[in-house]
Order: sequence, then C-alpha cells, then structure tokens
Amino acid sequence: VCALEVMSQIPNLLRENDFAVRCTLFSDGQRAVVTGVDPARAEHPSLGLAVDLGTTRYVLQLVDLGSGQVLSSADRGNPQGRIGPDILTRIHHAAKEEGLLALQQTLIQDMNQALDKLCAQEGVTPKCIHNIALAGNTAMTHFFLGLDPRWMIREPYIPAVNTPGLIRAQALGLGAHPFARVYCFPNIGSYFGGDLLSGIIFSGLNSREEAALMVDVGTNAEVILGNKDWLIACAGAAGPALEGGVSKIGAQAGPGIIGSVDIDPQSLQIRVHTIQDLPPRGICGSGIIDLAAEMFSAGLLDFRGKMVPDKCPDLFVQDQEIWHIRLVSADASGTGKDLLIGQPEIDSLIRSKAAMFTILETLVDSVGIGFQDLSAFFVAGTFGNFIKPESAIGIGMLPDLPRELFQPLGNSSVGGAVRFLQDAQVVEDVKQVKERITYLELNVNQAFMNQFSAAKFLPHTERTKFPSVLVKS
Amino acid sequence: VCALEVMSQIPNLLRENDFAVRCTLFSDGQRAVVTGVDPARAEHPSLGLAVDLGTTRYVLQLVDLGSGQVLSSADRGNPQGRIGPDILTRIHHAAKEEGLLALQQTLIQDMNQALDKLCAQEGVTPKCIHNIALAGNTAMTHFFLGLDPRWMIREPYIPAVNTPGLIRAQALGLGAHPFARVYCFPNIGSYFGGDLLSGIIFSGLNSREEAALMVDVGTNAEVILGNKDWLIACAGAAGPALEGGVSKIGAQAGPGIIGSVDIDPQSLQIRVHTIQDLPPRGICGSGIIDLAAEMFSAGLLDFRGKMVPDKCPDLFVQDQEIWHIRLVSADASGTGKDLLIGQPEIDSLIRSKAAMFTILETLVDSVGIGFQDLSAFFVAGTFGNFIKPESAIGIGMLPDLPRELFQPLGNSSVGGAVRFLQDAQVVEDVKQVKERITYLELNVNQAFMNQFSAAKFLPHTERTKFPSVLVKS
Repeated sequence: VCALEVMSQIPNLLRENDFAVRCTLFSDGQRAVVTGVDPARAEHPSLGLAVDLGTTRYVLQLVDLGSGQVLSSADRGNPQGRIGPDILTRIHHAAKEEGLLALQQTLIQDMNQALDKLCAQEGVTPKCIHNIALAGNTAMTHFFLGLDPRWMIREPYIPAVNTPGLIRAQALGLGAHPFARVYCFPNIGSYFGGDLLSGIIFSGLNSREEAALMVDVGTNAEVILGNKDWLIACAGAAGPALEGGVSKIGAQAGPGIIGSVDIDPQSLQIRVHTIQDLPPRGICGSGIIDLAAEMFSAGLLDFRGKMVPDKCPDLFVQDQEIWHIRLVSADASGTGKDLLIGQPEIDSLIRSKAAMFTILETLVDSVGIGFQDLSAFFVAGTFGNFIKPESAIGIGMLPDLPRELFQPLGNSSVGGAVRFLQDAQVVEDVKQVKERITYLELNVNQAFMNQFSAAKFLPHTERTKFPSVLVKS
Repeated sequence: VCALEVMSQIPNLLRENDFAVRCTLFSDGQRAVVTGVDPARAEHPSLGLAVDLGTTRYVLQLVDLGSGQVLSSADRGNPQGRIGPDILTRIHHAAKEEGLLALQQTLIQDMNQALDKLCAQEGVTPKCIHNIALAGNTAMTHFFLGLDPRWMIREPYIPAVNTPGLIRAQALGLGAHPFARVYCFPNIGSYFGGDLLSGIIFSGLNSREEAALMVDVGTNAEVILGNKDWLIACAGAAGPALEGGVSKIGAQAGPGIIGSVDIDPQSLQIRVHTIQDLPPRGICGSGIIDLAAEMFSAGLLDFRGKMVPDKCPDLFVQDQEIWHIRLVSADASGTGKDLLIGQPEIDSLIRSKAAMFTILETLVDSVGIGFQDLSAFFVAGTFGNFIKPESAIGIGMLPDLPRELFQPLGNSSVGGAVRFLQDAQVVEDVKQVKERITYLELNVNQAFMNQFSAAKFLPHTERTKFPSVLVKS
C-alpha cells in the first residue's frame, strides 16, 4: 500500500535519480506500507524508532533500518505522571473534557523533544524516522493513540482496540517523517498489553522446545509461561494481595541508589553498593530484596518477616513504636541523614513476594507442570538487571531453581520493538503469539488466599519448597 | 483495516446503541476498510457514489449501499474543459505552477456542488456517502488524484500509478463522509484507463463463454475483444488516421439535436428526429452516421463519399466551392438558419469510420478469428444509445453482422462503478480482468494504412465484406 502523497512523489524522484531509490517499507502483517522513498545515494540513513512506553518511564531507541544497528537510546519519565501517577488516575482524567487530548499531547510533545535530542546526537533529524514500533501496556497505548480508555476499567473490561495496525505518525503529532507509520504491539486485553507481547518476542519464549518462564516486574508483575507450542500468561494486578505493587518498594534504580546489600553473618556489619558508587540516598527493589534476604539469613528477620532488634540492638532504632534498621548512618549517606528501612516496608515486601510466588505457583500448577520442568527463568525489566536470584530465592519470592537458569533480560519490551524493526518476519511471530496465548484470569478465591498466606513466611511455610535456603532455627 | 478516527468512535457508539451498529466496509481487493459506523437504527442510508469521469463530461450516480439501488444521477460538463479542452492541453497545464492543483480543485469543487444538489434531491447530505467508485481514463484519474501526469506523454508513456487503491475522500477535498474512501478503477496504462476496465465489468465480456466485442466511443474509440479466458484491447488514439476523433463530428447529444435521419428513397425527402422533438439546432454523431447511410442508400453520396448534387439539386447548396446538403430549412430549424452539412464533415466521418473499421478488423485478425465468431457486439457510450446498427453497417463503420447481435450498453463506465458498489465480489473480477487483458499497440504501418485506405469507401472497397448492404451502381 502506498499513500497518495507517496505516489505523487515517486515518478519524479525515480527520474531524478536514474531510477535508483531507497524504499522503506513497514508491515503490520496485513499490509506493507511505503513509509519512505529517498534517493538510493541519500546520505542520511533510514531510521526506525523502538519505543517502550511504560506508565512511569519510557525508553526510545533509534535503529538504523539498513544495518539493523541500535544507534542510541533515551530513557525518560512519562510526563503523564504529572497528570496522574498511576493508570487508574489517568483513565479517570481522560474522561474529563480535553483530558484524553492532554494526556496524549503531553506525551507526544515530550517524545518530540526526546527525538530532537536523540537525533541531534546522531547528526540527523527526526525526519529520518520512517518506522516506529511501540510496545506499551494497554492503557498507555490508548493514551498514545488518543483512544478512549474508559471501557477498560468497566466490566467486561474491553479496550477500544487490540490491534491498531499501522497509524500515521503525523496524525498523532509525532515529528517523524511525513510518511512514517507507527506500529503498536497488539494487546491481548485490558490487562495484557503490547509490552508483554513484545517482551515474549524478545525472550524467544515462543520458539523454545522446552517450557520456560518470563517474569516482568514493572508497575505490575506479569508472568508468561510456555514454549513453541503453547503460552499462558497472567498479570499480577489481580486483587487485594498485590495492593501496593511489587515495584513500589523503595526508589527507582538510579545513581546513588542502593542496588545490593551484604550483611556479614559474623560481625553483622552492613555493606551497601550503590549505582555509580555514589553516596547512598535510597534503595531500590532489588536492594530491598537483598536486604531482606541478608537480614533473614543473619537472623535479623524472623520467619514471619519481623525484625529481631535483640540480635543486634545497635543496628535498630524505634520511631513511634515502629522498628527500623539503620542501613547507612548519616555521616556516610548522600542525604546527610540516616537511611532507615522500617518494618512496614519489610511487611510490604513480604506481601509482594508472597503474591509473586503465589502467582508463579498458580500459573505453573495450571498447566500441570512443576518449577523443575522449566528450562529457563527470564527476569525482565530494570528489576531483572539488578535482582540477585540468590536473594529473591532466599526470601521465597522466586522458586528454588538452579541459579544458572535465571537470566536477566533487561528492557524486553523495547528489545522486542527493536527486533520488530530489524526483521520483517517478526510480525508473523507476533501474530502467532497473539493467537496462541492463553490468559489466565487469576481467581482470588480461598485456595489462592491459602497459598498466599503460606507464602507470607520466609522463605515459605513449606520449607521443602526451598531446600537450598539455609534457615536458622 | 480501521483508521484511528474510526477506532476512537466505535467503543462509545457500540454502547450507546446496545451494540447494534451498521458498519460500511469498502475493499480494494487488498484490504477492507471501515468507511462508516452508524447506529443500526439510523434513519439516513449509507450511500455509495459511482463516478464516470470523462474528459468532456462526468456522471455521478448515488447508490443505496443497503439495497444496491441507484437513487439518482447527474451528468455534468467536466469543468476542466475551461482550462483545456483536451487531455494534452490539460497535461501541459498541469506542468505549470499550481496547474495540477487548479485542475484537481476545479473538478473537486464542481463535484461537491453536484453532490450537494444530488443529495438534496434525496433528502440526505453528502456526509451519507461512504464508498466512492470512480472510473476515468488515466489522465482524468491523475488529475482527480492530483498526480503528476507528465510521464504519460513522454516515452515510454508511464502513468504515475496504475492501481491507486483506496484514497481518503477527505484528502482530495471531496465533501463526503469523513471516513469515506475513493476507489479508482486501475489503469492498464497511459492509454487504457479505469473507465474501460469498468466498462468491461459492466458488459460482462469477461465472463462469457464465447467471444464478444465492446466498442466505447468517447473522446477516443476504444475496443475490447474477448471472453472469460482472454481479453484483448486497443484504443483508437493511434496515429494520424484518427486525427479529429470519431466523436468530434457534430454536437453532443441533447435537446433539439438531430439523433436520426431518414431519406425517402423515392421522393428524396429528408426527415429528421430530434431529441425531445424540439426544433432542430444541430446534429450528433449518430445523426450524421444515419445521414451518410441514408444519403448513400439514396444515391446522394457516391462510393467515395462525395456528394452527388446532380441527383437532387434542390437539396444542395454550394458555399465557397464546397457542397453542402440542406438538412433542415431555416423556417423549420431551431436556429432560424438552414442546417447545413458540408462535404468536409462527411469526409471527416469517412475517415473516422474507416479508422474504426480498420481497428476492429485489426483486433479481430490479431487473435485469428473473424467477425462471424462474435456472439455479441456491445456499443457503449451515449453514442451506443443512439446509433442505429443498420446505418453504421450501411457506411461500413461496423461489421456486417446480424443486427440483433448489436447491444447498446449506455454509460458502461458508470455502470461498472455502480456494480462495484453493489457487489463486493466485483473487485476480484477487476483484478482478474486487469491481469488477463492484453493491450494491442496499434502499429500504424503500411498494412494498417492499406486496410485504412480500403475502408475509406462506402461501405468498403471489398463489397463482399458487407453482403447485406445494398449498393446502387
């Protein structure tokens, strides 16, 4: 398919260039659209843009469509956060007059600024961008396209669209080439967005002989299990158990943020490691998991996850009857104050890890296999880059599998979008995954709650589930 | 395929109407596009518009897409005629600054006026029009779409596009529904436009067991021969023989224009019949063919096509040494003057009829059959509605076949466009015809010129070719 504006340029362009032109095509699996026609000897490259559009942050990566090479990338806060921090607030905002437009335009303007910067680094302009592949959760995709999200949060939770196909970048106000098209990875439903589909593509889960599992811990915890023949997914925004969310503990990973923690079992001395080795000013999810695992292992947390101040009174302080552990003292911290972690934060972690483990168990049980049948365990997201399997297993968040099975994927969502731009065959994989995948509606019934309660201990009430975790009695 | 603007309306529209909506779809054979979504109980119909876009005139027909019924039609002069009377002048005009835009916008504005009128007659607005099927020659289709036609008239005569696919009506400025799409019948080449393809569809030539022939006499003479297995076409703008063009003789058919002529063989009295029986003020193509046939039959033309004034001196007047026949005297005419036809106009007709017959012979010869193998002979265009086969055969313009084989088709181009709107299967027929048809490049060589010269006599130098025509010796 070739738009009118392209048709009108081709005849003269062909003749001005001795019939040697470079065509950029983009396909959504239904039709291939001409997204660019340039002289074959053009000096500027034909670029693609991969986008992971998250609720909190978004990532852009420029791809040279000729070589497939990733040229540069940018990671920015989603400016819609100023309108509403979470999806639900934004969906409500969208219902206000001009609310949806504001959500869309805030994002698009920010993206355009980011694109200008990113392209300037490469010595090109955003007009070189012809193909854009965007992977986001269902709500973010709706906001990006300016589609009314209201039905996503009303029974029976139906998005406006699951497979938007190719959309003109111009129609969205994106400052790419006038012929550019945006491909949004399709949603499976309101709670299963294109970002997961893109992640599956990146993980290769859909082409493995043996079953593997992928966990993506973003704003929600999302889990996919399967192989080349079947795929089953579930998402963790599945009831009260996950209130608070897995990733809400602590700060976003960043410079000066504690990513890992060691506690010497003898001296009980705490050593923290920060990103870029700057003075510590906060702790991120993986850091707090480390902390909990090390505290438990050192006897500073009991099996219910409660702090044991008697074990080493110097380490603990009490504030309004709540115990805190002093992770870093004021003189060593980046904030000039003690860095404290309180019992409520540990409690929150325990709930999250219990929810995560229960979801994993439920999903694996649902297909009649056990954790031991997994050939790989992919951990996607920033979280996956920092988390130590040893620690996550230590607190009973992830199953007790040989450590080498755990593989961090990084940002699998943007990774899948890059793959989509690099290889025209990927669109077929996306279609197949979309058709094949089953979505497991987490049924928060008595059985689930029982499993959840059993998982709220360290590492678990059933110790046989975590044979490699040493438990001090 | 569903455009962003459609996606954004569907969710609410569905729920406001208890999930009962009327979708209008339009397919170009590659993809079906949603061109409208209305409440199922909407009072206004979903309309289609069929367009025959001719160089001189254009025809619009409104079609109810629900019932397939043609509601009303309009026939208007192509306003581009003010810019340039013929295709070549307009193509040159298009090369000027803003020239192409002027050609396009002049037409679109006129169409919008026509649509307003046509829709008002039906008590609807042009916003009810969702699907538009347009059949025009290659140049007209280019002007309509705003595509540069310059390469059509330069070797190797390549149009900017042959298969434009579905185009947004809005992008062209057409005042139809915002979601409306225009399908332009594809061209086979610069000299073989979508109007002919549409005409073939309307004639059914492409689905007949036995070979049949279709002649369309518009600004050029175009001929198609074939059956369900093969199709071959040629167009008459093929060299000096056709200069002047078949249809240039006389006026356009219209009120007060002579459409047929009788000459009593005994009294040599001339009787004319005008359209709407108004006082005669001109003669159209079919009238002049009648006149020549009757004059020849009455001995008032010799076999070279020259007037024989001696036969009936009262009928003839000489002006500047050129003989004219007085068709209507001043007192009976609608102009207050004698209606005269001069020898040069008869000469022009003879050249045209010779060209037509030579083209027909060449085409039929080229596939190794004879006229006697034809199962039907369709005559399309206004011309076809008025022409009497008897007269056309009488002067040797059409072959001497049983008269019942001749069938007038009327405006086959708009007819095919209506068929396209009525039946979603027709798009496949169009594709098949386009793939199957062969274009015969008329080679104006010595053999052609010899045949042409032989055909310049009445009815022909080889009388055996016209056994049923009585020739006075």
